[in-house]
Amino acid sequence: MPGEFELIARYFTRPARQAVLGVGDDCALLQIAPGMQLAVSTDMLVAGRHFFPGVDPFLLGHKCLAVNLSDLAACGARPLAFSLALALPQAEDAWLEPFSKGLLALADAHGCELIGGDTTRGPLTICITVYGEVPADAAARPVPTLALLRSGALPGDDVYVSGSLGDAALALLALQGRFQLPDHLLHAARARMEQPTPRVALGMALRGIASACADVSDGLLGDLDHILARSHCGARLEVDKVLPLLAARQAYAGGAAQFDSDYGARTALQCVLAGGDDYELVFTAPVQQRSTLAALSDTLQLPLTCIATIEAAPGLRLVDAQGHAVPHDFASFDHFAVASGLQ
Amino acid sequence: MPGEFELIARYFTRPARQAVLGVGDDCALLQIAPGMQLAVSTDMLVAGRHFFPGVDPFLLGHKCLAVNLSDLAACGARPLAFSLALALPQAEDAWLEPFSKGLLALADAHGCELIGGDTTRGPLTICITVYGEVPADAAARPVPTLALLRSGALPGDDVYVSGSLGDAALALLALQGRFQLPDHLLHAARARMEQPTPRVALGMALRGIASACADVSDGLLGDLDHILARSHCGARLEVDKVLPLLAARQAYAGGAAQFDSDYGARTALQCVLAGGDDYELVFTAPVQQRSTLAALSDTLQLPLTCIATIEAAPGLRLVDAQGHAVPHDFASFDHFAVASGLQ
Repeated sequence: MPGEFELIARYFTRPARQAVLGVGDDCALLQIAPGMQLAVSTDMLVAGRHFFPGVDPFLLGHKCLAVNLSDLAACGARPLAFSLALALPQAEDAWLEPFSKGLLALADAHGCELIGGDTTRGPLTICITVYGEVPADAAARPVPTLALLRSGALPGDDVYVSGSLGDAALALLALQGRFQLPDHLLHAARARMEQPTPRVALGMALRGIASACADVSDGLLGDLDHILARSHCGARLEVDKVLPLLAARQAYAGGAAQFDSDYGARTALQCVLAGGDDYELVFTAPVQQRSTLAALSDTLQLPLTCIATIEAAPGLRLVDAQGHAVPHDFASFDHFAVASGLQ
Repeated sequence: MPGEFELIARYFTRPARQAVLGVGDDCALLQIAPGMQLAVSTDMLVAGRHFFPGVDPFLLGHKCLAVNLSDLAACGARPLAFSLALALPQAEDAWLEPFSKGLLALADAHGCELIGGDTTRGPLTICITVYGEVPADAAARPVPTLALLRSGALPGDDVYVSGSLGDAALALLALQGRFQLPDHLLHAARARMEQPTPRVALGMALRGIASACADVSDGLLGDLDHILARSHCGARLEVDKVLPLLAARQAYAGGAAQFDSDYGARTALQCVLAGGDDYELVFTAPVQQRSTLAALSDTLQLPLTCIATIEAAPGLRLVDAQGHAVPHDFASFDHFAVASGLQ
């Protein structure tokens, strides 16, 4: 079995490219360009909670970095580098090789280099810290930055969500035997769960356009609620505009037609509104930005769907197409409040 | 039991001071001053490996940050901020309150603010990433920085170590019942293990003086070996100069006189040369810096002991006062090669 230093060298050490100093010293060194600010975010993934212990290590490597890049995307930062802290029950080439490949493939796709970290023996736990840059903006109030923040939404703003929602949660239910999906839909939904796409280009493009932004990691309602809380406002959300964002629901045709049952309809709503693990962006923008956002959606080949309107009154109001209130009791995902499920 | 967000707010959210944006958004934002580089380091501590699961949470909070600040010290960086990722079996006030107090007391002492992180349920694991700044130096070769690196030692340089060595390892042996220490010595040694002092002021003062530097986390021989490997040179180390650095050995007088036995002498040597968990700095400097370093030692009230000389021939040669080779087989600590012990 290789030792710690050999293991680091074999799978994780590559020459520094943008960094002043990369893996192998007590610290790594990054030069932040003049006029830019450093954006940092940390996520810790624990086996049995955030992923199945037996998951394909290549996919796991991808996902661990993807969820962190999604945080950079949510603030409109350009990825620069990341650190990796890894606790492993044992050092096995058969796991480390595909894990590092999945991790570094996504890193390379975003020009985000691995500059340091830590390895130790312990229950499988992966902690990544990502570093990105965003332009400073001395004129911006109250925070002198061009970064997208959760604060900043104003009454009258549109609320958008990128891509599709809820399929990751639906895949989890299907894999747990709690929902039936035809193979081709399960395959697509499972890819959303196992290989999420961080919306880095969208986040960077939204600088100066979006008034507030967050990524959808804990579920749409919970993450939108973070924006509302930090922006001291509320929103009116049209459920009928959100439901079609569940890709599996749109694609599902005939057969058992599970989504037409009471259980199916409730499950679809639960997944799309509170499912989590989507890694799309939810953001607000003044109505004047509608044409700009339509053009951006075309450019990025990524749906940007207007699902709600910001209102001055605090709270999130769900309504149907006729404007009638839709009762809901979907909690935001909370790692300590929720004891079941794999999150 | 409090929820994740309430828990973060209660113990870990304080207003940002130096940071552009602190805890509570998708990313934290830091402004790096013109002419400075960002130094980052990550350490992950796992219960049962790096600390006893039942350890006093106040002391644990201190130690988790101390080991990270020690990495900043080793590269001469000034601490700015840190992120905390925490996996907990359960969210208990009785643990979180003292843990956060120990953590934030040390953070405040170094002006190092908590700017973000992650909490999740899982086996007790603590991952901290620290951010510091060091001056860039465009004229420096091959790395344009004033940071202290592991590379840079040259034949003829003196090798110094700060403070005392080996007492943390000795405390561990005593707590495991493998070595007898009188209560007052155990108390002092245990404090070294549980509340190490990161040598931040020393590290910053060594910029432009030390030719290479590392912190002693895995044991003196292993960490000095990192300097030798990165500097492509060797060293001749006088064992008799190192042994007195075991504070407990110096203080031990009469009684059982365990250190005078074969087992005691071997244990002392093992602890001081390969014990680990000391968080002192080992560094090299040209002989012209001797008077400067003596003055620095006075100023900081911290012993700086010259223990070795850098030589061109690779490898680490241990000698006694008469220059005779001292056989040794102390491995650097390796988390995957060593199956026993609590490291």
